[in-house]
Amino acid sequence: MDITVGGRRVARRAYGFDEVALAPGPLVIDAKDVDVSWKLGDLTIQCPILASSLDGAVNPALAAEMSRLGGLAVLNLDGIQTRYENAEEILQQIADHPSEGVIRFIQSLYAAAPVRADLIALRIKQIKANGGIAAVAAAPHTAHKAAEAAVAAGADVFVIQSTVGTVKFESSTIPEFPIAEFCKNSPIPVIVGNTVGYQATYDLMEAGAAAILVGVGPGHICTSRKVLGIGVPQITATADCAAARDDYFEQTGRYVPIITDGGIRNGGDISKAIAAGADAVMLGSTIAAAKEAPAPGYSWGMATSSADLPRGTRIQVGISGTLEEILYGPAHRDDGTMNLVGALRLSMGSLGAHNIKEMQHVQMFVAPSLPTEGKSLQRSQGVG
Amino acid sequence: MDITVGGRRVARRAYGFDEVALAPGPLVIDAKDVDVSWKLGDLTIQCPILASSLDGAVNPALAAEMSRLGGLAVLNLDGIQTRYENAEEILQQIADHPSEGVIRFIQSLYAAAPVRADLIALRIKQIKANGGIAAVAAAPHTAHKAAEAAVAAGADVFVIQSTVGTVKFESSTIPEFPIAEFCKNSPIPVIVGNTVGYQATYDLMEAGAAAILVGVGPGHICTSRKVLGIGVPQITATADCAAARDDYFEQTGRYVPIITDGGIRNGGDISKAIAAGADAVMLGSTIAAAKEAPAPGYSWGMATSSADLPRGTRIQVGISGTLEEILYGPAHRDDGTMNLVGALRLSMGSLGAHNIKEMQHVQMFVAPSLPTEGKSLQRSQGVG
Amino acid sequence: MDITVGGRRVARRAYGFDEVALAPGPLVIDAKDVDVSWKLGDLTIQCPILASSLDGAVNPALAAEMSRLGGLAVLNLDGIQTRYENAEEILQQIADHPSEGVIRFIQSLYAAAPVRADLIALRIKQIKANGGIAAVAAAPHTAHKAAEAAVAAGADVFVIQSTVGTVKFESSTIPEFPIAEFCKNSPIPVIVGNTVGYQATYDLMEAGAAAILVGVGPGHICTSRKVLGIGVPQITATADCAAARDDYFEQTGRYVPIITDGGIRNGGDISKAIAAGADAVMLGSTIAAAKEAPAPGYSWGMATSSADLPRGTRIQVGISGTLEEILYGPAHRDDGTMNLVGALRLSMGSLGAHNIKEMQHVQMFVAPSLPTEGKSLQRSQGVG
Amino acid sequence: MDITVGGRRVARRAYGFDEVALAPGPLVIDAKDVDVSWKLGDLTIQCPILASSLDGAVNPALAAEMSRLGGLAVLNLDGIQTRYENAEEILQQIADHPSEGVIRFIQSLYAAAPVRADLIALRIKQIKANGGIAAVAAAPHTAHKAAEAAVAAGADVFVIQSTVGTVKFESSTIPEFPIAEFCKNSPIPVIVGNTVGYQATYDLMEAGAAAILVGVGPGHICTSRKVLGIGVPQITATADCAAARDDYFEQTGRYVPIITDGGIRNGGDISKAIAAGADAVMLGSTIAAAKEAPAPGYSWGMATSSADLPRGTRIQVGISGTLEEILYGPAHRDDGTMNLVGALRLSMGSLGAHNIKEMQHVQMFVAPSLPTEGKSLQRSQGVG
Repeated sequence: MDITVGGRRVARRAYGFDEVALAPGPLVIDAKDVDVSWKLGDLTIQCPILASSLDGAVNPALAAEMSRLGGLAVLNLDGIQTRYENAEEILQQIADHPSEGVIRFIQSLYAAAPVRADLIALRIKQIKANGGIAAVAAAPHTAHKAAEAAVAAGADVFVIQSTVGTVKFESSTIPEFPIAEFCKNSPIPVIVGNTVGYQATYDLMEAGAAAILVGVGPGHICTSRKVLGIGVPQITATADCAAARDDYFEQTGRYVPIITDGGIRNGGDISKAIAAGADAVMLGSTIAAAKEAPAPGYSWGMATSSADLPRGTRIQVGISGTLEEILYGPAHRDDGTMNLVGALRLSMGSLGAHNIKEMQHVQMFVAPSLPTEGKSLQRSQGVG
Repeated sequence: MDITVGGRRVARRAYGFDEVALAPGPLVIDAKDVDVSWKLGDLTIQCPILASSLDGAVNPALAAEMSRLGGLAVLNLDGIQTRYENAEEILQQIADHPSEGVIRFIQSLYAAAPVRADLIALRIKQIKANGGIAAVAAAPHTAHKAAEAAVAAGADVFVIQSTVGTVKFESSTIPEFPIAEFCKNSPIPVIVGNTVGYQATYDLMEAGAAAILVGVGPGHICTSRKVLGIGVPQITATADCAAARDDYFEQTGRYVPIITDGGIRNGGDISKAIAAGADAVMLGSTIAAAKEAPAPGYSWGMATSSADLPRGTRIQVGISGTLEEILYGPAHRDDGTMNLVGALRLSMGSLGAHNIKEMQHVQMFVAPSLPTEGKSLQRSQGVG
Repeated sequence: MDITVGGRRVARRAYGFDEVALAPGPLVIDAKDVDVSWKLGDLTIQCPILASSLDGAVNPALAAEMSRLGGLAVLNLDGIQTRYENAEEILQQIADHPSEGVIRFIQSLYAAAPVRADLIALRIKQIKANGGIAAVAAAPHTAHKAAEAAVAAGADVFVIQSTVGTVKFESSTIPEFPIAEFCKNSPIPVIVGNTVGYQATYDLMEAGAAAILVGVGPGHICTSRKVLGIGVPQITATADCAAARDDYFEQTGRYVPIITDGGIRNGGDISKAIAAGADAVMLGSTIAAAKEAPAPGYSWGMATSSADLPRGTRIQVGISGTLEEILYGPAHRDDGTMNLVGALRLSMGSLGAHNIKEMQHVQMFVAPSLPTEGKSLQRSQGVG
Repeated sequence: MDITVGGRRVARRAYGFDEVALAPGPLVIDAKDVDVSWKLGDLTIQCPILASSLDGAVNPALAAEMSRLGGLAVLNLDGIQTRYENAEEILQQIADHPSEGVIRFIQSLYAAAPVRADLIALRIKQIKANGGIAAVAAAPHTAHKAAEAAVAAGADVFVIQSTVGTVKFESSTIPEFPIAEFCKNSPIPVIVGNTVGYQATYDLMEAGAAAILVGVGPGHICTSRKVLGIGVPQITATADCAAARDDYFEQTGRYVPIITDGGIRNGGDISKAIAAGADAVMLGSTIAAAKEAPAPGYSWGMATSSADLPRGTRIQVGISGTLEEILYGPAHRDDGTMNLVGALRLSMGSLGAHNIKEMQHVQMFVAPSLPTEGKSLQRSQGVG
C-alpha cells in the first residue's frame, strides 16, 4: 500500500469520488423497502443528509424545513447570521456583488461585525419556533461562549468545527481547547470535525464526540489543496475514519457515526461516501441551490472570510428546486442533484443493501472517470 | 487484484473501453475470410450487432431493416411505440422539443399514456409484415402481460430488461419475478439483462436465459454513475460475465452468449468488447444516428422517462448514414461510426482472429487514452 | 506485468510518449560531440530521422532535399505521385478542399486513377536527378510490380508497408506475400512494416528485412484505435521490438535497426523513442509542415483513401519552417517541432549518451502528463 | 518500484505536485509558533523562499526588497541586466512586444549585447546600496569571469546554474568546469544546480556546493520535456535529492540544503516540495507577478533566449500584489499565490510540523488531480 515517491519518501494512495464506482450483485431490493435512517446518540434520524453550516446554505428557516423533511441542518454561529441582525439583506448583498472583489467584500463584512450573543439566541429561537431541530456550529476559539448562549436558547446539537479538528493542539498563546471536558459537560450531543485519519478520529471518539465530520480539503482542486497542499480524497478519508469508528465500537460498545463532509456533488457521491463507510453525509452547495437557501444561487466557504488567507471564493451554484424536491424529488434533471434520498434508496436497492450498515459493504470498483470518455459519452446511449 | 482504498475497505480495479487497446500478433487474416456470426440458441445470426430497445433507435421499420441486414433489433414494449398509435408523430415532437425542459416533456408523455396490448400486437405484426425477426423487450413488472400479447402476435425473441436484472429480488409489496419459470414456459428464447458480475450472470444462466445483456452504468460519466454511484466499466463487466458463461458452459454444455450493452461508441469499442469476451454487442445511439431511425438525429435513455428520478436526457446523435452504411459501409468518415461490420472484420483479420471465439483471446493492452495526447494528435501523422 | 482486467482476461500495461520522461544522470556531454548516426545495412546515415511516405510529406523534391540534409525520405508508390502526372496540382486541390467532404474527395481521387509504372519510374528519376537517395514504398499486394519498376529506375531502398505487416498472412483468395523470398531477391535493402510485438518483429528479421518500421495505431485517439480498437502506445511497442532486435542480433550477428513510426510530434518524442530502443524515427506531419512539403500546411494518412473504411482524415499541420530549419534549426518556436537534430543532440548530451546505442539505455521515468498541470503551467516558470 | 515498459526496458514511476497531497494527523500547531527558517552555510534565512534568476523576476530593487522581507533573490548575471545599461527599458519592450515573434525578439536582444563586467558590478552595488543580500547567478561557461567581477563588487552568494548541472562534463572543445576547485576558492557560498538524481546530487555536495537547486524540466508539459524529452516531476526529484543530502550529512556531518526550483505555482506546491524533502523553494513566475517585478505581468525562461533551440516562451503571469503581500499577505484571492509564508505556516501547523525538518516527514498521499473533478468542483462546497 505504501508507494515510494522518491528516495526514502513514502506515500499512501488515496481515492476520491470520481475514482470509484459501485457494482450490483445477485440481489436487488425494492427501493421502497430500503432503510436509510441513522442514529446520532439516542436520536434516530430518518434522512442521512445534513446541511452544512455555510452562510449560503443554512438560515433558521431552512434549518426548520430541513428538520421537517427528516434531515438535519447546522447553523453557523460564527457567520453572517450571528453578526448581522439584517442577515438576509447582507447575504443578498454578497449574492449581488460582482465576482471581481467579492472575496475582499466578504472579508470586510466579517471584519466589520463581531458575533453577538443575542443574535445566537435569536437564531436558535427562530429555528425552534418553526419546529426545527437546532443544530449549531462554532469554531473551537468561540465554542465556549457560543455554546453557553446556544444551550440557554434551547439548541439541540452542538458542532465544533474547524478546518482540522484534533484533540491535541499546541500554541504558545492560545490554550488547548479541552474537547473531552467540553463534550462531558455539554447537555447536548457534540459533533466534532473536520478530521481525517484513523488516529485523529479515534482520539476524538475517546474525547466524547457524538459524531465526527470527515473531510479536510477533499476536493482535488479545492482551495485548501492549492493554498496549503492539504487534502485527502473523501473515499479514503471516509474509509480510514470508518475503521476507527468500527474499532472504537468494538472496544467500547459506543457507536459514533461518521459524517462525510465536503466534495459531495450529487447522489452518486452520497452513495459512494456511505459505501466507503459513512453513516451520513453533509452537503453544502447542493443545499445552497435550494429555492429556500439564504443567498439564492450562491455559496461560499467558511474560509473565504479569512482576513489573511482566504481558501475559497463565492461560487454560483444555481437554483435546482425546493429543498423538498432536492431531497425527495421529483427530479426534472438527470445530473444527480435532485431527489437525493430517492436516488440513495434506488442505489441501495440496486446494490442489495437493506440499510446503511449493509451499504457500507457493497462491492466497490476503482474505476476512474476518464476525461475523454466524458466527451465521447455526449453521444453515448444513456441507457446506464 | 484487491486494492485497499482506505481503512479495511477494498475495491477491485475496473477497466473501460478507453483504457484498453488491442495488439496484432504474428498472423494477419484476410478480412473477407473472417467469420463474425454468433448463435442465439439454435439461431445463427450473421452480424454480432443488436439494436437497443430505445425509443430513438428502434421502430418496426428499422427492426425489419436490421433483420434484412443480418442483425437483430429489439423493440421496447414499454416505450412510445406501444403507448401511442401515432408514435412517429410523438417521437418527432420529442426530437423537435427545445433542450430546456425536454426531460419533463418525456416524463409527461410516458405518464399520460399507458402501454396498450393492441399496440404491442400491432408493432410486432408490422415487423413481421416486413419480413423481420420480432425481438421485443419489457421490464419485469410488465413482462408477463407484454409477453402474452407478444407471443400471440408472433414475436420471435423476448427480452426482459431492467437497469439491474437479477434472479433474486426482495420487496414487501411486489412479488419476485419468476425468471426461471418465465424462461421455462416461454415458447421463444428469452434474453435477460442487464447484469454485471460473475454470480449474477451465472444465476441468470441457471434460470434459463438464452442470452445475457451485460452492462450497468457503463459510461464513466453516465447518469447512473452520477445519480446512483453505480457503474461498472464494460471491459471488466464483460470479462467477468464471460468467465461465468465459460464456466456455465463447461459445467452444463449449454452455451449462453453474452451481449455487451452500453457505452459502445464506435467500431473500436465493438472490437474491444468482443476481445473482452462478448459474443455480440448492443448499440443505441449509433443506430439512432441512422437515416431510418425513429427520431432522426436524437436519442434518449429508457430511464429518462422515470417520473421521479430520470437518469439520462435526450442527446443529439446526428445522422451518420443509412443503417446499411452504418453496418456495412462504405464509410465516408473516420470516426468509427460507419461500416461497423467491415471494421470488425478488418480488426479481427489484423489481429489474426478467424472468428468471434478467437477474437475473445487476442492480445489486449491496458493503454489509457491520455487527454493531452488527444489534443496533440490533431497534428499527428494519422498513419495509424 | 499481467493485469487481470476482469474474469480470466489478462492484459499488459502499455506506455505512450506522454507517459514517460527522461532523466539526466551524473554526466553531461557537449551536444556537439554526440554521434546521432545509425546504420541501414552497410549504409551509415547521419541523421536518424526518416520522412514518412505520406502524400503530404514526401514528393521527389523533398526526398532529394532530405537526402542532402543527411536523412532519408520515403516516397509512396501507391499514392498520388504515381497515380497522377500532375500530382502537385492534385495535392493542391486536396489542400484547398473544404474540410466537409474531404475524405470523400480523397477516396474519389484514389479510385479514379490507378498506379502507373511509368510514373513510378519518373518519380524515382526525379529524386536521383537531384542527387537524392530514392527510398520508395508499396503495399504487399502492389510490391512485386512496384519493385520491378522501382529497381529498374534506380531505387536505392524499398519499403513494404501495410497497417500490420507480418510474415504470416491467411486468405482464401490472395496468395501470401513471400517476404523472405522478396528480401532475398531484392538487389536493394528492404524495410518492412509496420509491426509491433516481439514475435512478429523477430519473424520479419528472420525473413530478411533490412530494417523494421515499428508502430500500429500508436496515437491514443488515432483513428485505428477508434475504428478498429487496435493500437499499441509507442514506448512499449518500441521496447518490445528492440528486445527482438537485440536477441536476433545476439543469435545471428546481424543487426536490424528498428524505426519508430507514428505518433511522434516533437523532439521530446524522438528522444523518448530512441530511449525506448529505436535506432531511428519516422515522421509524417512534422515533415509535412515544411515549407517544401507537397501539400503546404496539410497532411493525411495512407488509410484516408480507403474506399470502404477510412481511418484518418486530412489535418492541418501548419507550416513551421524550411526542412533544414526543422532538422537543424535555428528554431524560433519552443514547441519542439524545429531543430529536431539539435534537440536530439542536446538531449543526448544532457543525458550523458555518446551515441544512439547509449541513448537506448538512459534513465527513463514513468511520468504522466496530467491535463491540469498543463493548464497550470501556462503560469509556470518556464525555466525547465 | 521498477516498471517494465516493454521488452527489457525498465522505468521508475515519478510523481509531480498535482499527484500528491498532504494529510493532517492527530496534532495541530498554532501557525504563529511554526518555525520556517532554514540555513545556508552559516547564514540563517528566515523565509524559505528564493526568487529565481529570471529576467522577469529579479532586478536589483526587487532583490533588495526580497532581502528586507527575509528571503533571498538571485540576480542573473547572464541576462538582460548585465547586457543593457537601460535594462528596465529593454524589459518593458519585451513585455510590450506582441506574442507573435516574441521568442525571436528575445533571441535578438541576447545576441546583440554581450555581458559587461561593469554592469555586473553596477547591479551588485545597486543591491547592496539598498541593504540587500547580493546573490547572483551565472552559467558554468561564464562563471569564472562573472564570479571575479561579482566578488569584487561585494556579492554575498554565487549560483552556478545550468539546465543540467553536474560535476562530470565531457567535451572535445570546452574544458570541464572545475566545480570542486571553484567552490573551494570561492570566498562566498556557492549554490549549484540544477540537478536531479541521487548520484548527481551527492557528487555536487562532495564538490563543495553550499546548496543544491533541484529540478530539471519539472513541469509536465514544460518545454524541456517537449523539446528534449527530459523532465523529472518535482516530488520525486526532490525526494531523491533529499536522500542524497541526508546520506551526505550522515557521512560527513555537513548539511547541504536542497532548494526545489521549477514548477511551483502556489502555496500548496511549496508545502508539498518541503514535505518531499526540500529545505527551501525557488519561485519564478509567482515572483514575476509582483508589482515590483522588472517586467510587470510577464516572465520568460532562461532558455527562451537560446539562439538555436528556445525551450520556453514569454508568458503572461499577471500582477497579483506587492512582493510583501505575495510573501506575507493579506491575500485577497484564494488561488494560493499570495501570503505564501502565511500559507506555509498554516499548512505546517495543520500538519503538526514545528519546523522545516518535521515538515519533511508529514503524511503524504498520492492523490491525483482528476480533470473532471476540477470542473465539477466549480459547484463544490468550497469548505476545504
